[in-house]
Amino acid sequence: MERENRASVGGMEGDKDVRGANKRSLRCSDLVLRFVALALTLAAAVVLGVDKQTKLMEVTTVSSPPPVLVPVTSKWHYLSAFVYFVVANAIACSHAAVSLLLTLASRGGKKNVALMIFILDLVMVALLFSGIGAATTAGLLGFQGNKHVQWNKVCNKFEKFCNQALAAIAISVLASLAFLLLVLLAAPNVHKKH
Amino acid sequence: MERENRASVGGMEGDKDVRGANKRSLRCSDLVLRFVALALTLAAAVVLGVDKQTKLMEVTTVSSPPPVLVPVTSKWHYLSAFVYFVVANAIACSHAAVSLLLTLASRGGKKNVALMIFILDLVMVALLFSGIGAATTAGLLGFQGNKHVQWNKVCNKFEKFCNQALAAIAISVLASLAFLLLVLLAAPNVHKKH
Repeated sequence: MERENRASVGGMEGDKDVRGANKRSLRCSDLVLRFVALALTLAAAVVLGVDKQTKLMEVTTVSSPPPVLVPVTSKWHYLSAFVYFVVANAIACSHAAVSLLLTLASRGGKKNVALMIFILDLVMVALLFSGIGAATTAGLLGFQGNKHVQWNKVCNKFEKFCNQALAAIAISVLASLAFLLLVLLAAPNVHKKH
Repeated sequence: MERENRASVGGMEGDKDVRGANKRSLRCSDLVLRFVALALTLAAAVVLGVDKQTKLMEVTTVSSPPPVLVPVTSKWHYLSAFVYFVVANAIACSHAAVSLLLTLASRGGKKNVALMIFILDLVMVALLFSGIGAATTAGLLGFQGNKHVQWNKVCNKFEKFCNQALAAIAISVLASLAFLLLVLLAAPNVHKKH
């Protein structure tokens, strides 16, 4: 009987150890993913935020029959979809930084903080994916144009600008996947005692 | 001592009742939200999927000096962003229908089914928000145009078409909020025993 009790106590302690190890591993994954999300959203915002290309283009005017070379500049903030993308990534980056500090400070103890971070992570998923959708549409129109509405492609003239925008979108996709994983990982911790 | 025990047993039963009532209320909210999400994604896909407008426009040709009236049609599938939006809403609608049936059939008993539905709800949030971002960008360009890339506005000519697209986007925003709430509500049930 005593042996059984000891075995049962030993089993409970073993369970506790396993749960403790799982909790530490989850916390570690959470911190790593949050840092990755921070770095990627920062990179996406910066890569598109500094996107600018100036090119000399031939322009024929009435007064001067031979074509004149005029510098034409393409900037990221000319398209509102790109502005939205940069702002969305900047907000997600700030949230990742603040939540990283809060997670480090609270050491998983404060349920309300964890719940708030969980909800905001979910909002960041929505925000980033809407930004990706917006920027991809603007980018695709730039690459292909649209003959039905007579929007001409511009990426044949501003290749470097378009490729940089494409890189920013790819980075942001990775960042949003990190936030998706954060929501999946955080759910058990947030709601355990509800 | 006996009284204390009875009180304690009574307290535990009370707790069980409260937990049972909470679980029923959560399940009811889940079913209602899932039905709302199904109806709204279906509506959004249909409203944009039947969007079409034909208008007579003046065209001046070289052979006939006075302008000729030519019918010009605007269709939803002329813009790839609108195609993506309709497909995203159709996928989310199918998921809402299947998950509604699964939730009704499993009665909250099967953890794996609940986990799968939870993950897919989260994927639907990402899918719908990217669709909303894409369609909004295309819609905004249609309403305002963009002078930097010389894309002319088209909504001054196809008002009904653009307003219908706007309505579809608004409906999809409501549907994606329903999926967001589903993720928030489902988290405690999915991960309770993990």
